[in-house]
Formats: sequence, C-alpha cells, structure tokens
Amino acid sequence: MRNTWEYFSTENIIFGNGAITRLDGALKRLKAKNVFVITDRGVAQAGILAKVTEQLDLHGYQTVVYDKAIPEPPIESVVEAYEFAKSQMKTDVIIGLGGGSSIDLAKVVALLMEYGGHPTDYFGGENLVPGPIAPLIAIPTTAGTGSEVTSVAVVTDTENNIKVGISDNFLRPAVALLDPELTVGLPPYVTACSGIDALSHAVEAYTAKDFRYIQSKEKLLFQGSLPITDALALQAIELIAGNLAVAVQQGSNLEARGNMLLGSLLAGLAFSNAGTALAHALAYPIGGKAKSPHGELTGLLLPYVMKYNTATEQDKMVKIAQAFGIEQGSKTTREYAEAASEAVLQLLKDINLPTKLSEIGVKEEDLESIAEKALPIERLVRNNPRVPNQASLVELLKQAY
Amino acid sequence: MRNTWEYFSTENIIFGNGAITRLDGALKRLKAKNVFVITDRGVAQAGILAKVTEQLDLHGYQTVVYDKAIPEPPIESVVEAYEFAKSQMKTDVIIGLGGGSSIDLAKVVALLMEYGGHPTDYFGGENLVPGPIAPLIAIPTTAGTGSEVTSVAVVTDTENNIKVGISDNFLRPAVALLDPELTVGLPPYVTACSGIDALSHAVEAYTAKDFRYIQSKEKLLFQGSLPITDALALQAIELIAGNLAVAVQQGSNLEARGNMLLGSLLAGLAFSNAGTALAHALAYPIGGKAKSPHGELTGLLLPYVMKYNTATEQDKMVKIAQAFGIEQGSKTTREYAEAASEAVLQLLKDINLPTKLSEIGVKEEDLESIAEKALPIERLVRNNPRVPNQASLVELLKQAY
Ligand SMILES: [Fe+2]
Ligand SMILES: [Fe+2]
Repeated sequence: MRNTWEYFSTENIIFGNGAITRLDGALKRLKAKNVFVITDRGVAQAGILAKVTEQLDLHGYQTVVYDKAIPEPPIESVVEAYEFAKSQMKTDVIIGLGGGSSIDLAKVVALLMEYGGHPTDYFGGENLVPGPIAPLIAIPTTAGTGSEVTSVAVVTDTENNIKVGISDNFLRPAVALLDPELTVGLPPYVTACSGIDALSHAVEAYTAKDFRYIQSKEKLLFQGSLPITDALALQAIELIAGNLAVAVQQGSNLEARGNMLLGSLLAGLAFSNAGTALAHALAYPIGGKAKSPHGELTGLLLPYVMKYNTATEQDKMVKIAQAFGIEQGSKTTREYAEAASEAVLQLLKDINLPTKLSEIGVKEEDLESIAEKALPIERLVRNNPRVPNQASLVELLKQAY
Repeated sequence: MRNTWEYFSTENIIFGNGAITRLDGALKRLKAKNVFVITDRGVAQAGILAKVTEQLDLHGYQTVVYDKAIPEPPIESVVEAYEFAKSQMKTDVIIGLGGGSSIDLAKVVALLMEYGGHPTDYFGGENLVPGPIAPLIAIPTTAGTGSEVTSVAVVTDTENNIKVGISDNFLRPAVALLDPELTVGLPPYVTACSGIDALSHAVEAYTAKDFRYIQSKEKLLFQGSLPITDALALQAIELIAGNLAVAVQQGSNLEARGNMLLGSLLAGLAFSNAGTALAHALAYPIGGKAKSPHGELTGLLLPYVMKYNTATEQDKMVKIAQAFGIEQGSKTTREYAEAASEAVLQLLKDINLPTKLSEIGVKEEDLESIAEKALPIERLVRNNPRVPNQASLVELLKQAY
C-alpha cells in the first residue's frame, strides 16, 4: 500500500471575462520586460493574438511573436521556435497562446531556453528536466487539454512517426491565464472534441484507482485518485455536464464558455496529478488507425470504459450520475451507477460526436491489436480501477464498435 | 461587478503517513544542501524535531536549528531568528516546523533572508514584498491554521500591543509537507481549538460573498467565494465534520488525524484565496478581552455567524448540513439550512469547547465595543454574505453571550 501522495499546482491561476487585462499584473509579478509569444496562425487570424499584443504594447513590453506553432509540434518545429527565441536579444517571459499544441510548444521552448540541448534529450525518462523552466504564462484559447496547468508536453517524433511526451512537474506554467472571451469563436466541432476530452480527463481522474492501491514502488507523476483531485474532478464533471452541449450549440453563450473553460482547468489540475486511465490508453493505438482528433477518440471510448468500470467504482459512478442531474428514482444502485455512462453516451449524441468506432474508420479486425497495444501503457493502465486483460478489453472495444 | 478572480496555490504539497521520508526528495528538487530549521521547544521536546533532523542527517544535509519560536512571534523574536540565520555560512532552504506560529516566523525569516530590512518594513501595505521569498518548506504539527499553504504571517508588535499580519502571495511556502503521524501527540484541547479554527476557515470561505459582488475596485488578496475554493472548502467541511470529534477523543486515531490534517490543508487553500469573514472579524476585538486561543474564539462565534447568514446563503448552508450527514426529513429548506449552524454548535459541545462568550470572560457591557471594533475590519467584513451593521452585530453577539 502506498501511504503518501504529492499534489503539484500551477502557482497562479487568473480566470474571468476580460482576464487578459490582468496580463500586465502577471508580467509585473514576474518582473518581465521582454516577452516572447508563441502561438499559431489560426489564433492570429481570429484576432486573439492582437488582443494579447495590444495589452503588451499598452504597458510597454518588448514583444516578439512566433506564430508558426502547428498541431502536435514536430521536433523540427520545436527546434525552429527555440532557435528563433534564442536569436532575440533577451526573453524574460514566454507566453504560450492557443490550444494545447501552442502551449505544449511553449513549454518545450521554455525548457530549452533554460537548459539548452535538443528536445530528444528530454524524451521518455524521469527526472530529465533539471529544474524550473523559464517563466511561462499559458493562455488557452480552447477548453479541453488543460495544458495551461499540466506537467506534460506532447511533440511528434517525425522520424519514428510517434508522439512523444516530455513529462515533469517543472513543466507546469508559472501562470495560467484563462479568459472565456477568447474562446467564443471556436467552431462547434472543435468545442465538442476538446470539451469531451476535458470530461474524459475529469472522469478518468475521479474514477482512477485509489492512490493507495496503485501497484508501483516508484515515485509517480500519475498517482491515481487523490482526495484533492477528487474534489476538483467532481466539480469539473458537474460543470462540463451542465455546459458542454450549450457551448457547442450556442458558441457565443459566454456563461457556458466560462463554465467549460473552468471545467477544463479543474480537470487539468486533477488529471495532471491523478492521471488518466483506459480511455486514454486505448485512444493511443486507435489514433494510429483513425484520423480523429484526440478528444473525439477519448470521448467516444469514455462511456464504454465507464461501463466496464462500473462494478469497481459504483459509488463514484453514482456521484457522476448525480453531477449529470440524474435522480435515483426507482433505480437500483447498480442501475444508478450505470446511468453515468449512459449520460455520457447521450452527451456525445447531443454534441454530434461519433459513438461507435465503426463510424470513424476503425476495422473490426483491428480490435485485437488495439487491445494488445494499449495494455502495456502502464502509467495509464495501472490507474484503471478494473484491471484489464486482452479478452475483456476486446469485449469492451466490441461494445464500442 | 467583478469579473476576474485569481487563485494562488503552494506549488508542491506532500501528504501522508511517513511523508517526512519524502523530505529528501523535496530538498533535492530545491537543490538544497544547507538547511535552516525553525521550530519551537515543544516540538523539540515531543521528539518531532528529531524525526526531521534524522532525515536531514541521513541524507547528508548541513543543518542548523533555531528552536526558540514562540506563539504569535514578537518582532524582537523575528529579528533574533533572522540574525541567527544570517550568521550561518549559507542557507539554501528554510524549514518551518510546528504550529502556525513557527511556520509564520519561518515565512518572515525567509522574506528577510531574501530582501533584508526589518519586519516593520513589510507591515500593513500591499505589494511590499518585492518577489519570491527564500525557498521554504512548511511542516505543520497541528491541524488548523493552514499556514503551510497560506499567504499570511502574523507577528506581534509588542510596542503597540497589536497583532500585525504580513500578507502577500509571495509568502506562500514553496512546499507544504504534511505527515499525520507528527500530529498524534497533540493534546485534546489543542486538537479541538485548532480543528475548529480549520472548520471556521472552511465555512467562512465557502459561504463568503460571491467574488463577483465584493465591493472593491482594487486587486484583493481575499476575493470572496470562488468556484475553485468552493470545491476545496466543501470537502474540508466534510472531512472536519466527520473527524474532529474522533481526533479530539482518540488522539492516536491516525485515520482521524490524517483526515483533520487534510481538511485543514484544503481549508487553508480555500480561505487564503477566498478569505474569511465575520467570525474572524469578531474574534480580533474579543481576543483583546479574553485569553482564549484564536480557534476557541472563531469556533465559538461560528454557529452564531452561520445562523446570522442563513437567509443569504441558504443553499450553501444546506450543503454544509449535508456535509455533516444531516438528512432533510420533514424539514423546510430554511430549517435544513439552519441545521448547519446547529450541527456546529453540537460539535463544539462534543469537543468540550465553550459555546458562550460569557464562559470565556467577556462582559456583556463589552458587546457594543466589540461590534464597533469588528465593523471596520473591511478585508473580512466585506466578505460576509450578509452586510453587518452595529445593531445586528450586537444582536448576534447577544445570541452568543
Ligand atoms: Fe485527453
Ligand atoms: Fe482562523
């Protein structure tokens, strides 16, 4: 039995409509004068970058912008951004502005700015990040990845055609600045995929195996369910359950946008300590077969994984059902617990996302190999409350097919 | 209406039985070699200091101990501790080990070590702390103040015979290390006073006025109720409601001790962002009249303040009643909400704390002046969900008399 847990948090979270006007305060607190902004073309074209640079100009910061971030940044793109940052006179603070990919890129650039080297130097192992990275302010423009508060950056190793994570608690941004007004322009499909991914983070963190019973002797980044992450994750579930469909259907509904951004933040704080589980483990090999965005995969898998886990986490599934506003009525406890997975399935339909693997181009003959490839992803699989094996995983995938 | 909130957190929280064995990992993360421990004689005599120095010796740290911390440290004592720390060759990390006072003293010493000067330089104003203080690891030996994660240090200005707070988000310790095993020896009365203070923090943060409606144009340290502090505070209330009586009556019950330490931690994270309210505002002038410890005062006042606030925070009071395990039965919603304050009153009796001001030496003729002195404590009073005035406060105090 493990007795001790560790919880890491971004030190400073700034949240609210117009929070962007507090950027100056955050930069002053970090004693910054020279700011390097990392973002992507889409964010620039949507006019969001201008809202940020306007604040920087207004308060007299020296600003350099790199706007060539691309999804799941390839190593070469990371190196390019780093070389560009290095070529500047001075950088006191890096701002990562955009979806998860821009923020992830900013994390790796902040790491390299502080310790040099090449992205591959930091791949795969524990304790490869020597200490705090360069001061980083993360400003998300989507509600989903939680990257603004997490310890992970995902980049693409193009040579080997795999996604690689650099994971270390030192990678957490110093400041997460969340302004719901920056997210109102997101298209429905992106809102749906990123929002359901946030729900997956919250549900997988909340129902993860109790940290005491995770089988490992090592110090872990993903530790299983902790008391503090349970509180954050359950509130995230309630926020997302109550607001995702509205945010998808009414993009300019600022209240729904705000609640989604908050839900995604709380889910990020939760899962970056507790970890995710089987829905994320299965999403990796499926990502190799289907061209769906990450959130579409984790979202599709989530109700089936929840059903698979119901017997082991019955009480927590009931709490999730309650967070979805479902009353017990004449249901048995088991039925009440299963209502949680049914509510997620219904939510997928309400936001027009696929609910079957067959809809996204996965072939039935792939299910065996998907299960085979997911099982060894230990840092996620060991978090799952029910211990999976090949046969039961294939059965789960058949349910989802 | 205020649109934006900020949440600050200790970056690294380590929690669990035997967590003290993780001290080495925390120190390595801070790249420390020379450690300055601030504690008090009681902690040393109880053998708790030895548990810490044993870990430090085992892993080869250079350790210097200052064990003369005293409750609500007078300025002279702060200066003495600082001078002693300065006289050492080198200090990389300060450890504050003990109750709230030892940790508060360690915060001020860490501030002076980084920026020099005199404690009075930092009194009273905003933005007087120029930046991050020297790296500080807080190890609490009581479950109550939450000082291990808060932004406040209270010292005593002996010349003017008042308690003064230095408040700044830079004062939060870099690491909070919480080991329930260190708290098993606390006597019942100390357990009761500190535990009920933690409950006051949680309840006052949870029922504080919504941050949007706090009347102030400034940037505030205590911002009113925030979504993230609500989640933490409600879990704290549940933990304390379920465990304080057991911890008082069965000091060696490690499970109850652990839940109290966790509850006090979560309450600290909550109230250090949301703030406390009327029970704390009233406790200050009463502290000038009665010799009770802080927690005895806030605890005694809490049920009366809750009752006073019931109409304005009815829904949250119901949630508190639920956290105490109370079912609605045939109660009206108002009665259900009032059951929360009755549950706190019962808890006071269960842990042998006074429930009336008359029991602790306050005189009836003092009630008017107590109300008069509490009303101008704006940073707390503006947080209260019901706007107090002289007449209604005196009425509240009469109820508590
Ligand atoms: Fe995800
Ligand atoms: Fe208190």
